[in-house]
Amino acid sequence: MLTLDFHPAGRHFLQIPGPSPVPDRILRAMSYPTIDHRGPEFGALGLKVLSGIQKIFKTSQPVIIYPASGTGAWEAALSNTLSPGDHVLMYETGHFATLWKKMAEALGLKPEFLGLPGIEGWRRGVQADMIAERLRADTGHSIKAVCVVHNETSTGVTSNIAAVRKAIDSVGHPALLLVDTISGLACADYRHDEWGVDVTVSGSQKGLMLPPGISFNAVSKKAIEASKTAKLPRAFWDWTEIIEMNKVGYWPYTPNTNLLYGLHEALDMILGEGLDNVFARHQRLAAACRTAVDTWGLEVQCKDAAVYSPVLTGVMTPEGVDADAVRKVIYERFNMSLGTGLGKMKGRMFRIGHLGEANELTLMATLAGCEMGLKLAGIKLAGSGVAAAMENLSASGQETPRLQRVS
Amino acid sequence: MLTLDFHPAGRHFLQIPGPSPVPDRILRAMSYPTIDHRGPEFGALGLKVLSGIQKIFKTSQPVIIYPASGTGAWEAALSNTLSPGDHVLMYETGHFATLWKKMAEALGLKPEFLGLPGIEGWRRGVQADMIAERLRADTGHSIKAVCVVHNETSTGVTSNIAAVRKAIDSVGHPALLLVDTISGLACADYRHDEWGVDVTVSGSQKGLMLPPGISFNAVSKKAIEASKTAKLPRAFWDWTEIIEMNKVGYWPYTPNTNLLYGLHEALDMILGEGLDNVFARHQRLAAACRTAVDTWGLEVQCKDAAVYSPVLTGVMTPEGVDADAVRKVIYERFNMSLGTGLGKMKGRMFRIGHLGEANELTLMATLAGCEMGLKLAGIKLAGSGVAAAMENLSASGQETPRLQRVS
Amino acid sequence: MLTLDFHPAGRHFLQIPGPSPVPDRILRAMSYPTIDHRGPEFGALGLKVLSGIQKIFKTSQPVIIYPASGTGAWEAALSNTLSPGDHVLMYETGHFATLWKKMAEALGLKPEFLGLPGIEGWRRGVQADMIAERLRADTGHSIKAVCVVHNETSTGVTSNIAAVRKAIDSVGHPALLLVDTISGLACADYRHDEWGVDVTVSGSQKGLMLPPGISFNAVSKKAIEASKTAKLPRAFWDWTEIIEMNKVGYWPYTPNTNLLYGLHEALDMILGEGLDNVFARHQRLAAACRTAVDTWGLEVQCKDAAVYSPVLTGVMTPEGVDADAVRKVIYERFNMSLGTGLGKMKGRMFRIGHLGEANELTLMATLAGCEMGLKLAGIKLAGSGVAAAMENLSASGQETPRLQRVS
Amino acid sequence: MLTLDFHPAGRHFLQIPGPSPVPDRILRAMSYPTIDHRGPEFGALGLKVLSGIQKIFKTSQPVIIYPASGTGAWEAALSNTLSPGDHVLMYETGHFATLWKKMAEALGLKPEFLGLPGIEGWRRGVQADMIAERLRADTGHSIKAVCVVHNETSTGVTSNIAAVRKAIDSVGHPALLLVDTISGLACADYRHDEWGVDVTVSGSQKGLMLPPGISFNAVSKKAIEASKTAKLPRAFWDWTEIIEMNKVGYWPYTPNTNLLYGLHEALDMILGEGLDNVFARHQRLAAACRTAVDTWGLEVQCKDAAVYSPVLTGVMTPEGVDADAVRKVIYERFNMSLGTGLGKMKGRMFRIGHLGEANELTLMATLAGCEMGLKLAGIKLAGSGVAAAMENLSASGQETPRLQRVS
Repeated sequence: MLTLDFHPAGRHFLQIPGPSPVPDRILRAMSYPTIDHRGPEFGALGLKVLSGIQKIFKTSQPVIIYPASGTGAWEAALSNTLSPGDHVLMYETGHFATLWKKMAEALGLKPEFLGLPGIEGWRRGVQADMIAERLRADTGHSIKAVCVVHNETSTGVTSNIAAVRKAIDSVGHPALLLVDTISGLACADYRHDEWGVDVTVSGSQKGLMLPPGISFNAVSKKAIEASKTAKLPRAFWDWTEIIEMNKVGYWPYTPNTNLLYGLHEALDMILGEGLDNVFARHQRLAAACRTAVDTWGLEVQCKDAAVYSPVLTGVMTPEGVDADAVRKVIYERFNMSLGTGLGKMKGRMFRIGHLGEANELTLMATLAGCEMGLKLAGIKLAGSGVAAAMENLSASGQETPRLQRVS
Repeated sequence: MLTLDFHPAGRHFLQIPGPSPVPDRILRAMSYPTIDHRGPEFGALGLKVLSGIQKIFKTSQPVIIYPASGTGAWEAALSNTLSPGDHVLMYETGHFATLWKKMAEALGLKPEFLGLPGIEGWRRGVQADMIAERLRADTGHSIKAVCVVHNETSTGVTSNIAAVRKAIDSVGHPALLLVDTISGLACADYRHDEWGVDVTVSGSQKGLMLPPGISFNAVSKKAIEASKTAKLPRAFWDWTEIIEMNKVGYWPYTPNTNLLYGLHEALDMILGEGLDNVFARHQRLAAACRTAVDTWGLEVQCKDAAVYSPVLTGVMTPEGVDADAVRKVIYERFNMSLGTGLGKMKGRMFRIGHLGEANELTLMATLAGCEMGLKLAGIKLAGSGVAAAMENLSASGQETPRLQRVS
Repeated sequence: MLTLDFHPAGRHFLQIPGPSPVPDRILRAMSYPTIDHRGPEFGALGLKVLSGIQKIFKTSQPVIIYPASGTGAWEAALSNTLSPGDHVLMYETGHFATLWKKMAEALGLKPEFLGLPGIEGWRRGVQADMIAERLRADTGHSIKAVCVVHNETSTGVTSNIAAVRKAIDSVGHPALLLVDTISGLACADYRHDEWGVDVTVSGSQKGLMLPPGISFNAVSKKAIEASKTAKLPRAFWDWTEIIEMNKVGYWPYTPNTNLLYGLHEALDMILGEGLDNVFARHQRLAAACRTAVDTWGLEVQCKDAAVYSPVLTGVMTPEGVDADAVRKVIYERFNMSLGTGLGKMKGRMFRIGHLGEANELTLMATLAGCEMGLKLAGIKLAGSGVAAAMENLSASGQETPRLQRVS
Repeated sequence: MLTLDFHPAGRHFLQIPGPSPVPDRILRAMSYPTIDHRGPEFGALGLKVLSGIQKIFKTSQPVIIYPASGTGAWEAALSNTLSPGDHVLMYETGHFATLWKKMAEALGLKPEFLGLPGIEGWRRGVQADMIAERLRADTGHSIKAVCVVHNETSTGVTSNIAAVRKAIDSVGHPALLLVDTISGLACADYRHDEWGVDVTVSGSQKGLMLPPGISFNAVSKKAIEASKTAKLPRAFWDWTEIIEMNKVGYWPYTPNTNLLYGLHEALDMILGEGLDNVFARHQRLAAACRTAVDTWGLEVQCKDAAVYSPVLTGVMTPEGVDADAVRKVIYERFNMSLGTGLGKMKGRMFRIGHLGEANELTLMATLAGCEMGLKLAGIKLAGSGVAAAMENLSASGQETPRLQRVS
């Protein structure tokens, strides 16, 4: 029998920036018996989740659901639209942007990596003007695609995608716009159609509050057109047959049925709360979290207030303090998991996730765990972030509508 | 389909002094398929939980498990040991002691209610000397039983049962000692055999972390002897046949199989953590909670530091402030349920449960919710209880051993 | 960790006449987090299940839901309506009728046991004319209540309750009519109001498809009137306060919250299928089962075709064959639990449950297991009951409407 | 809320050859809260399942677990070992072999398709001598890999993989041997190391009794060597980094945590029962199923008794009878799903799955549903397959050891 009783007592606080805590409702939905993926019930379920997920991406175009984790959807976005040796412009927002670039290289593409120098690039969002400038210089249109990360999970920066679109259009460049919002979807406002994104990549284990295991490509007409001539070899990731069979609610190969049950439930929860309410809740919690960090006298990783992430907050530890040592104290004393610093930020920061199944009191528990842990790790704090966050949360009227139904 | 999505988002904090939050592990165990209650597997399960529950009560005598909630076990304790018209001495520790007395009357017993006058009696534990004095006066031994509540859920006072036993013995009185530890069991130290208790009454929905639905009578040889001549009519509650069939792991009538699965899991969790560790954890959280109340400048309901409850803390609101209005603010703004003031304390206090599936961060979330809610309700606080509790929890070294196994 | 992996592989077939298999949907509903039983959501839930359960009993009068198993509801029916020493007329339909009589004696009532002699009484339903005759002789109206079992679980006989009512009325006797339909409810047609029943006793673990743990008293105005003067001591079982608090959806003491979640789901399933469809399904399966028994050349325990039970079928083994040895073979070789012979029928019969979560193919699996087991136990069968049952089920058009919704 | 209450009542029988019914134990294990995939508990879990899955494949080499469904693992096997334009020899055993070939083409390989002509090839296993002959002719060793399906899910034929290995060796050809046992693993005996397989592809939703969503590549040293020079672009599927990180129990990208919980439980169940017992059970059920088909006077799809599948049985309907019309009757009347005929067999056969969570009585239910449905669809049967299967199952002594533990 599986036992995972690692912790002495009480609920573990999983406050990493994803996988985020999976609500009971979703875990229960996922425990429905697996059904025939070729039977009539499945078709009805398929159509329902395919239509629901479009609302989340704010698109009227197809959304492909892969029975694979988010990294796979990155590959799908590239291999469906590009050909070996294609030149792509990628922007370095942080560790995940770097991994995506590494993947592009592995697939035989020629990524060019744009960004601000050093750590600075990891503390600000995508600089749309740099993209505009680079594309303007590409008079021969050798660049086939621009790839950016919407919410960079390694830093807590949410870039302005509409500005990137504008930058591309401003110079009349035909490159495709591919966006990763794996950790942003259903936390931060996202508009696939309105922002003119060609492929949006996302995953299940963040704002959708599901376990990892399914991932998404939202596409545009232009992206589908591009896929007809794209030459990267592909089979599992190929959109064509999936889009065709999705029309009646099925998939060409075995879908991840139980995770689709979970997705159905997640859509019901998110659309029931209302996307705008979901976004406002994330903003409210993120603001309170940053207030706490400020009050502690620590630095928020993101330096540009316009692009603070509502999903997670990166906290920089003082010079000379190993952030992972702090995380260890918090984990061992207070039964809470925080995100580690990745890549260039290794040991310099920890990340607080406040996404998905999150509310005022889970945030307060999280901040209390951090404050106690920081002190126990020997860091002198300027003030009580917990107190400041309470002020902040009390001041902001809670606008989320309450549901009071037994049905 | 059942939907209970009352709250806009995130986990509800159920911080009433029971039913306490049921851990996932227990909910999962309860979802095992119901089995034949006359088959061989059931017998094995029955023997296992019957033996495990003895360890919790610290008794080598039988523990009867009823497929009924705790109120039923009160009735069972009385009806198995007493006869119509019997004189019993009951002690008024609070609302639940009062309800037990009311039940004794309904069953045709003649309860005499001892206690300190007015609200004072609800703020201190059982006064063992008053019991000794009363029994000394009962030279004819008309009093057949002494009934006391160990952990009074309505006030947050945990009385000294060993002292009551000593009081009875000190005057050589033959009365039975019946104790209700419905909300104390598996939170506060309890020793059925060592303290010479004749019947201990308990329930599932507090320290055992189960849903309501099963309850207990731990008995002594003297109690079983008494049951042979007790004349109160009884059938469902009758010990005799149950004890007999329990010897091979079965029950005379249909047991509450799925709750027994849950009990099995609870025993595994509690005995795995270690009873002493469980008690220490409750003490640690309760101390931090009281520190917070003190710092707010509010009064803890319990006035005697020797009998503070590790299970819950009663918080008195300032003169003129309706405690239920405070609870309402907290419930509506912060998605947390607190216990109301009962009986004599209606509107004068609220109760914070910190029992069962509880740890440092669930307590901090709870205290933050209280502190924000108290302020929003217009109460001027003397200081930040949250800050004080953090100090307190950080200072106390956590002694709970960590389990790190995948098995 | 709880492990109940007793069987080598595959699903266990629980074909006892209750507890019946609990559907996944109900197990999942029961795993909702326990909520505050004094909070607003609970009130809404309470009102919903209280109103739904009335539809199942076909009554507009209150139905009391006890957080206790069915045996408790027997006691409640007696103790709320009768006084010590009261004369009650009970009818011996089988083992459970006998146990109820034993309980009446334990409670200090004076039950008179009516019935056909020997085993014969256990093979036919209640003889309403015997009741009429007995009551006619009771000119002084010393008999305060008539107690009968609707569906006798130990034999597979479903008595005609309307006829009993008629018998009582035909002689103008004022006795109350108390009926046990613990195993009949939601399987066989039952009409509390129309049939003029004063107290109907039922439980959760049969047609309602729940685990054991809650039970019911449906009452009449006359029963409530009687309760005002009834003198049997009672507290936990007392109707008065429960009925009063139920008006707003609450209970005076802690209800069995998670089983109420399950009840909510069960009501949704049963009323969704439609009570008449549920009854027809049970009749269809029972008829096929009896056909199988006939074809094997064995005797159905019930001798009167008018009162065959749709819930279970009692199968008599040939003279000299120990029915329990047959059950053991079936259990060990085919991973299926059947009901044992009880009381007078010990070793002479086994009982096949086909109730609740049952359909054509679960019945066929059951009958195949019986047929193989009977042969392996050395019993010579006259023919293939399995073949006959297939004929029977194929012939009967399935009228149950199909639901095809994803919602 | 998700509702999937499509069927009027009772358990649905999912008797397709996968996804197979997921046992309750596994569904429960999958509902554990998602944990930090970079935390210490996860590492312990990872090491445990990685070591357990090796036992299932009977290999001491690495087994890669992908967070993707089985089709992905097909692609992984090809893309890790081959280069664009590589010549591969594939054998047409049925529909899935055909799909794999189609994938090879999509990826830019040059598959050559070997097999017996017409339907005949779909009714017999891999002809190892044809492979030997073809390889002998390939004196220039242009063929880089031989790809065969072990258990062809579309037909019910389990080919002899050891014979294929022998064939390759007999002509001293250096081609890699890639085998798909997606539906064979943990049902039919499989020996990755002993049979000299270079890559074995498998999935979760068949013998492992999990929902779809994870899949496997078991590899050989030779395969790993080949991967170093293989030129097909790959990133998500690339073995190198996964194998490296697996050494300490982690994955380079987010693993499918909750399905790994399920895998842990499945390993516990399968290894607890014993692989040989699992195989014997599948053989026992498959033999009984074929006896039934024979007795009905219908043809089993597989013509060669040496390669009957223990996983599923393909049943051919008489000339002129649409097999899908039969399936529809069975689905609508008896709440059971069967597999459709695929590709060349469309409308000519249906497939009965008897794999994973299967035992004697689930098989009997299945066969009874088929027998009734075939008759209702107007097919004249030669005899009762159900009766014959009962004979067969009763005759075979059940050797599976019984587990009787509560622990």
